[in-house]
Parts: sequence; structure tokens; C-alpha cells
Amino acid sequence: MYKKEISKAVINRLPRYYRYLGDLLEKDVVRISSKELSEKMKVTASQIRQDLNNFGGFGQQGYGYNVEYLHSEIGKILGLDTKYNMIIIGAGNLGQALANYVDFERRGFYVKALFDVSPKLIGQEVRGNIIKSADELEDYIKNNKVDIVAITVPKAKAPQLAADLVKWGIKGIWNFAPTDLNLPKDVTVENVHLAESLMKLSYRLSGKDDMRD
Amino acid sequence: MYKKEISKAVINRLPRYYRYLGDLLEKDVVRISSKELSEKMKVTASQIRQDLNNFGGFGQQGYGYNVEYLHSEIGKILGLDTKYNMIIIGAGNLGQALANYVDFERRGFYVKALFDVSPKLIGQEVRGNIIKSADELEDYIKNNKVDIVAITVPKAKAPQLAADLVKWGIKGIWNFAPTDLNLPKDVTVENVHLAESLMKLSYRLSGKDDMRD
Repeated sequence: MYKKEISKAVINRLPRYYRYLGDLLEKDVVRISSKELSEKMKVTASQIRQDLNNFGGFGQQGYGYNVEYLHSEIGKILGLDTKYNMIIIGAGNLGQALANYVDFERRGFYVKALFDVSPKLIGQEVRGNIIKSADELEDYIKNNKVDIVAITVPKAKAPQLAADLVKWGIKGIWNFAPTDLNLPKDVTVENVHLAESLMKLSYRLSGKDDMRD
Repeated sequence: MYKKEISKAVINRLPRYYRYLGDLLEKDVVRISSKELSEKMKVTASQIRQDLNNFGGFGQQGYGYNVEYLHSEIGKILGLDTKYNMIIIGAGNLGQALANYVDFERRGFYVKALFDVSPKLIGQEVRGNIIKSADELEDYIKNNKVDIVAITVPKAKAPQLAADLVKWGIKGIWNFAPTDLNLPKDVTVENVHLAESLMKLSYRLSGKDDMRD
């Protein structure tokens, strides 16, 4: 499969292409040159051509790109033509924020259930989902198709939870706990480490001496 | 300043070094070899040595790294020896989740205020902060030291808000709205695009045919 050869840097840019093309579609833009796309995205036109050539091109000399076609093709490359069932473990503010993102659904990610250990949260409703007790998690996973598990539990609880999820057959984890999970190779993990993102911001801010105290 | 020459890839790894070293500190580990650090972090030992050499080394042949010293030096490089005042605009679930992260405070990021437009949210308390009306934002920024603004408002509102913030002198933006903000060069922006993170996950999942419907 061609996917194996694509560099991580290209993959990291694809969701951005997808988002920009989606914005253009909403504005009824039919086609766009790599030059215009480049100005919008602040990536060089040749970089865009190179990136898209990885997947066979999609552009036509002198015509540019057909926005709808390119959007849909990149969507397929990103696996967005599939429907994913997602559950969220940890139904605090962050878990509830994720459950409330309508945009995820538009892209094929459906939040099917939320779980928590807190009696205060269990039984509450979040966008049509009643928060379940974490005690029901194993049964739920064994009896339902679950493609992605979002983990928004405290750091100390994440490793054991992840190990259990793997044991129960989960192959996709979206991890918000501030720790790296050691998982088998056939399990895909995407980390969102918020504190690290904030540190990158402070690194760049601290380089500007006028920002210092 | 040496900071200008450091590659983005190195910068992206520094917060992870910092996190790992912090974990070691909590376990009272005094020193660690680059080999051990490498096994923990799944980065090659020579990569670690190279990365840290960018900042003058810190290691001693045959001794390894002093965990506390390295942690503190990397903290300084990341600008974590400074105290940052942060405000959050958009006090929905995501904004409240950010306000509740105690870890941010430990690293010098203090949430000083939250703002929202919703009458339902204004006046509510989140970890000692009463949510203020967005109408008070301009005055607040003009009368208080604000280093970082976290934006958790809907996409459509983010560009105008960011433009206003820049006009009012804000230099650091942590953007959670799913759009890129066009800002002057002296304003530092760090984006957290959750939908893109999810797409990277689906890309990798969809490469595994057994995960498809």
C-alpha cells in the first residue's frame, strides 16, 4: 500500500489541507491554483504540489485543483470515508467538551458513550449520551463496535486503563492523559499533550525579551 | 541568542524531555544515563545527546545526566522559570477544562480570568475564578498583565477576537478554535487543532484494513 511510504511531515499537513479545502467548499469555491492555496496556507506552492503528488497529484496544469474533488480525495486518504465509533473515558470538562464537538460527527467520528467513576457524573446527560459507570466499560466494549477510545482520565490511571483497553481488543486510542502509553505495535495512539503545547508557546514567548517579567 | 538556531524538531522534543525528567524526579531518581533515558523515551541515545548539545550538553562522560539539574535547565530553556498570566476566552467545557488543570500552575501558567458571552455562564465560579462577561475583556486586558490568551470560542468568532486581542497588545495566543489566525509576526500563536489530531488517528487506523467497516 502506498500509505506506508508517506512521511510523517506530509501526513501532518494533510488534515490542514482538508480543513482549508473544507472552508473553500463552504464558500462555494470551485477551483483553486496551488499558488492561491499556498498563499492561504503559508506553505510554498511547490510544497503543496509535492505533497499531493505523493497521492497521485489531483492537479491539472493551468487549471489548478478542483476543490470538491481534492477535498473528498484527501478525506479518503485520511480515512474519513469510514464511520468511527468513539467512546470517551473520563466525563469531566474535557471529556464533555469532546462529546460536544459537532465537527467530529461531520467527519465520521460518532461519540457513542461516555464513562466515568464519579457518582456525581454517572447518569448525567451529554448531548444525548447518559454517562455510564466505568464498571460497565468492559461489557460495553465486548458487546459494541468501538474503533476509538478517547482517554481523559488523570495521568496516574491512564497506563492501567490503556492496558485493559488493549486486552479488550481496542486498536485506536486518543490519549489526553499527560503520559506516554506503552502499547503493542498494532494499537494506534494519538496523543494530545496540552501542557507540552503550552510549553512550546512559553519557549517562543520567552525568546522575546520584552515578554519577560 | 542561541535559541534562534534550534530546529523546530528539537523544540518539539524538549517538553517531552521535561515531562520525563519530572516523572523521574517524582520517583527520586538522582541521575540517568542517556541510554536509560533513551529507552524510556524511545528516542536514540545519540539523538538525546545531540538535542541536549544544542544547549551546551549537561551530561558528563560515564556519569550520565543529573536529573534535577537537567530538568531545571530544560525548564529554563522552555521559559518555565517565568510566571505567565493566562486568561481564557470561552468558558464552555473546554475553557473550564483548561482552567481546572492544576499542572499548568505548577509550571508557571496562572489562569487569572475566564470570559464568556453566555448569560448562563457569566457569574459561575471555576476554581476560584468568577466567569466574567466578554464585554469586560478590553478593560481587563488594559488594566492587567496578560501574557497568554487561550481562545476556546467557536471558529467563526476567532479571527475577529484575535484581531482585537492584538490591537489591545496581546503577544501570546493559545488557539483552540479550528482555524488558523493571521497575526503579526511579533505575536506568538500555538494551535491545538483537535479535529486534525483525530484525523491523524483515523489516517493511521484506516491503513489497517481490519479496522475498516
